[in-house]
Amino acid sequence: MNRFNTYLVNGSFELTISPIDRGFAYGDGVFRTMIMRNSVPDSWPQHYQKLVADCAVIGIVCPSAELLMSDLQQLFAIDEIAVAKIVITRGEGARGYTPPAITTPMRVVVKSVMPQYSMNQLVHGVNLHVCDIKIAHQPKLAGIKHLNRLENVMARMEWHEDTIFDGLLLDQLGNAIECTMSNIFARFGKTLITPDLSMCGVAGITRQRIISLSAILNLKIEVKNISLDEFLQADEVVICNSLYGAFQVSKIGDATLPQQGLAKMIRSALKS
Amino acid sequence: MNRFNTYLVNGSFELTISPIDRGFAYGDGVFRTMIMRNSVPDSWPQHYQKLVADCAVIGIVCPSAELLMSDLQQLFAIDEIAVAKIVITRGEGARGYTPPAITTPMRVVVKSVMPQYSMNQLVHGVNLHVCDIKIAHQPKLAGIKHLNRLENVMARMEWHEDTIFDGLLLDQLGNAIECTMSNIFARFGKTLITPDLSMCGVAGITRQRIISLSAILNLKIEVKNISLDEFLQADEVVICNSLYGAFQVSKIGDATLPQQGLAKMIRSALKS
Repeated sequence: MNRFNTYLVNGSFELTISPIDRGFAYGDGVFRTMIMRNSVPDSWPQHYQKLVADCAVIGIVCPSAELLMSDLQQLFAIDEIAVAKIVITRGEGARGYTPPAITTPMRVVVKSVMPQYSMNQLVHGVNLHVCDIKIAHQPKLAGIKHLNRLENVMARMEWHEDTIFDGLLLDQLGNAIECTMSNIFARFGKTLITPDLSMCGVAGITRQRIISLSAILNLKIEVKNISLDEFLQADEVVICNSLYGAFQVSKIGDATLPQQGLAKMIRSALKS
Repeated sequence: MNRFNTYLVNGSFELTISPIDRGFAYGDGVFRTMIMRNSVPDSWPQHYQKLVADCAVIGIVCPSAELLMSDLQQLFAIDEIAVAKIVITRGEGARGYTPPAITTPMRVVVKSVMPQYSMNQLVHGVNLHVCDIKIAHQPKLAGIKHLNRLENVMARMEWHEDTIFDGLLLDQLGNAIECTMSNIFARFGKTLITPDLSMCGVAGITRQRIISLSAILNLKIEVKNISLDEFLQADEVVICNSLYGAFQVSKIGDATLPQQGLAKMIRSALKS
């Protein structure tokens, strides 16, 4: 481990990425982002299971958990809290979309600083921009966190205000799907609704963990299509991801939302 | 120039791609593929103009034509015929979708061998598979050749037969849009129809050149939505790209198509 290194390619500090790696050429790969504490990733079983499942959707055999864990432990010191990004690509190939007959997936682990969240965000919640770009329906790739993320980039370029934490993405039918880096939930009484992601969107592991915690939260979960207007009628709205856990949404566009402490309850349940 | 080098990154044979380059992280970039002869790219003005236009759609300032031409001339020998791929990305950035305040686009030039096309393909045409995956509508990215190409990869993985040259991609409404590596035209009498690409697809430069050659071809061009069934009723069907020029389509799936020499006429017009 060397504190000055920020990434490992296939377990090596010496290797870099070739222009003929299909991750670079076509976005032919998947990734995950997680918090590292004491050289161990938070929620590793869930992250690894999701990585394997996402790889399988596009026909990549994911490297073993042992190999990835060994990479993580090479890169992250025991006393640091930081962000790990794991990227798995289909590996190198000749020009053209045809994958080679025998592919050797490439793995990259990147270290970044842990973002700083403010007490204000924890206590008063965060504001969402409503994105102009609509995310496209592609059921063959929906739910997976692949490297084709230009829609998220275009969405994120829509605002520059520091007061906006994330952007709400709708699909072309007007359903609210997710945010650029978060999943989203709306509570109506004792029911917690989260958008159906079978046509588009990324089904993050924190969303899945919240769904699994419904009994502890004493809420009934529904996964279904839900419009922006319906979100604005919710008793409260919460967003989540693997880094910040859960935040209350205080505003969507110009509309102020009620808050009754759901994000705090979810953060507490996620830690238990 | 060194015959053993196959790529240049930012004009250097020493540089490689970092995992924090946004082209790798998000597919945040665009590319072009062209034939090099005598160290000069075929149809360079059209390729460069398209590169600039595609970069502009996603907010990247394309490097100058002089810089790219200098890279090409470093990499390709005067006496070789080969394929050049130019990739422009938004450059490196911190983790997260937000582009850095100041970005330095990265340029990569890759050399590949020229594919060998057979006399049979030239004389008798080629067969198309009808892809199961449907390409998604995303008007904000339609027409541009960006690095988010997982749909093409998934489509290309649908067939393994050497007898199939390319795969026909439909959209989710049943319109025929393009092939994985080609654009497509259908002739009905004196009218040449090519699919409208305002919702999805890549508007290649050879397609644009054919549209511009309509007077020489003595055909009226229409750009509009056209279904697979309509393609099967055409007097003849032709596909095109920058490497092979134009090929007659002899079969789409199981359906055999009539052929009356349009591809040969187009190849000849493209050379003039």
